[in-house]
Amino acid sequence: MSLLVVGSVALDSVETPFGKRDDVLGGSGTYFAAAASLLTRVRVVGVIGEDFPLGDLEFLRRRGVDLDGLSRVPGKTFRWRGRYGFDLNTAETLDTQLNVFEHFSPELGPQARKASRIFLGNIDPELQIRVLEQVEAPRLVCADTMNYWISSRRALLQKLLPRVDVLMVNDSEVRQLAGESNVLKAAHAAQRMGAKTVLVKRGEYGALLVTAEHRFFAPAFPLADVVDPTGAGDSFAGGFLGLLDRLDSGEPAALRQATVIGCTIASFTVERFSLDRLRDLELGEVRRRFDAFRHLVHFDALPDDLG
Amino acid sequence: MSLLVVGSVALDSVETPFGKRDDVLGGSGTYFAAAASLLTRVRVVGVIGEDFPLGDLEFLRRRGVDLDGLSRVPGKTFRWRGRYGFDLNTAETLDTQLNVFEHFSPELGPQARKASRIFLGNIDPELQIRVLEQVEAPRLVCADTMNYWISSRRALLQKLLPRVDVLMVNDSEVRQLAGESNVLKAAHAAQRMGAKTVLVKRGEYGALLVTAEHRFFAPAFPLADVVDPTGAGDSFAGGFLGLLDRLDSGEPAALRQATVIGCTIASFTVERFSLDRLRDLELGEVRRRFDAFRHLVHFDALPDDLG
Repeated sequence: MSLLVVGSVALDSVETPFGKRDDVLGGSGTYFAAAASLLTRVRVVGVIGEDFPLGDLEFLRRRGVDLDGLSRVPGKTFRWRGRYGFDLNTAETLDTQLNVFEHFSPELGPQARKASRIFLGNIDPELQIRVLEQVEAPRLVCADTMNYWISSRRALLQKLLPRVDVLMVNDSEVRQLAGESNVLKAAHAAQRMGAKTVLVKRGEYGALLVTAEHRFFAPAFPLADVVDPTGAGDSFAGGFLGLLDRLDSGEPAALRQATVIGCTIASFTVERFSLDRLRDLELGEVRRRFDAFRHLVHFDALPDDLG
Repeated sequence: MSLLVVGSVALDSVETPFGKRDDVLGGSGTYFAAAASLLTRVRVVGVIGEDFPLGDLEFLRRRGVDLDGLSRVPGKTFRWRGRYGFDLNTAETLDTQLNVFEHFSPELGPQARKASRIFLGNIDPELQIRVLEQVEAPRLVCADTMNYWISSRRALLQKLLPRVDVLMVNDSEVRQLAGESNVLKAAHAAQRMGAKTVLVKRGEYGALLVTAEHRFFAPAFPLADVVDPTGAGDSFAGGFLGLLDRLDSGEPAALRQATVIGCTIASFTVERFSLDRLRDLELGEVRRRFDAFRHLVHFDALPDDLG
């Protein structure tokens, strides 16, 4: 099995009520790969500038991440600057510098074209489609998107959705896409637009999986210390697809486990700034918290004599 | 077993994106009793004015609710007027007329004093304490409160909390009570103030139960048609305490089931205006949705060879 991610590799400057970091490792492709590589083999396709500190990615290589698809080109690396308030649920973007990402056009090498599962990070849907056209026979395609593309590139998104197995978006994005305030109705509308399954990320409240046949809800793991929510969604995606690739399955039971392992890894991500927690995270720790998750949501059936 | 609720019996005027109702049945005691009476014997202590349409409570009598503690006094019934926007998560209060509720001082009859479990609805903590002083040997005391009492009656609340087994509040209330933005830390702070267990209601996201030993999370049941969220919290409380009273238990497994049956009954409440859905609700329907809840949150353990 192999997993391909197309997304940003970035330098972030982040401020939260618990501190401040400048020019630290970030980007959807980076968080995704750090999470997924705990479970399976990952290839990253993306672009960085000449200023990028390559040593920062060394821990990914040690985990077997294939970075050959990460091209280094003249210019500066994509930079994002943001701030979180006390509720930590939404980031305020202070500055975005696309830099080398502005002219990014993903080209897949021969190995990447054979990927069995793909995560299309939150980039222009035109580029997401271009990636799909290069992949030979993917078993599962998962795509993220955002409010900007939903409003400015709706036609392209509508072309993309029928090729998407799992659309992974947050509450407000699925509402905006569907023009419908009820999240469940909005998810069904996204299915009518073509996405087989819709996975709605609900920040500190967890994730809702809506497939053709069933619904599944996983809470976020309750944490006393959340330091920096950056990358929670992308490491969720990495855990989700990493497990599906490891299990080589898209069956309902696997989708549920994958959603929970996504929440689990995301709950580690937010405990520290940048990828600091993911860097040293081990699969044994993930497994133990996954088991704690089972205990967190477990309840018994009602007694037979009731009702 | 028997369950006592002290709370409001009111006439509500509500506007949501799905319609408008004037002077319909409402009040924390009413919603609570309608939910709890599906499961156990309930006594209501409260006050109504001469204008109250007594026939509206007939369905509660038919379900065995004891309304002898509901005194009818000269004056007008407590009235609340509110509006919900499209996200349906928070009510905007347009008008509150305490009327006969302003001089309400709960007096418990001999049967009510023997109640095994008590729900202290959201009233002045001074009155909540006065009720507790009249009850002989309750096995479980559950109390609600709100931002107004937390800011204006903190000393009384601090006197109440050590006598409370389950403090049932929403996200923002527990944050305000504890002066702490993290919900889990806030719940622990409320425990240090005396509450044995804290049950945090999170609106459309479900409920988090924090006891001395464990944590449990139940999602709200995902619904495509939410019409009026009024009474969701009080019918949640009614289901929660109703099941504990029926099972005569305060054990961890029962607290978890009770949390879920609370979410289940609340999910029916919001499908229609006022108590319209609760009026005809049957325990068999509740049981079926409870079972659907089990399916909604179920996931398998990870394979042994992973991690």
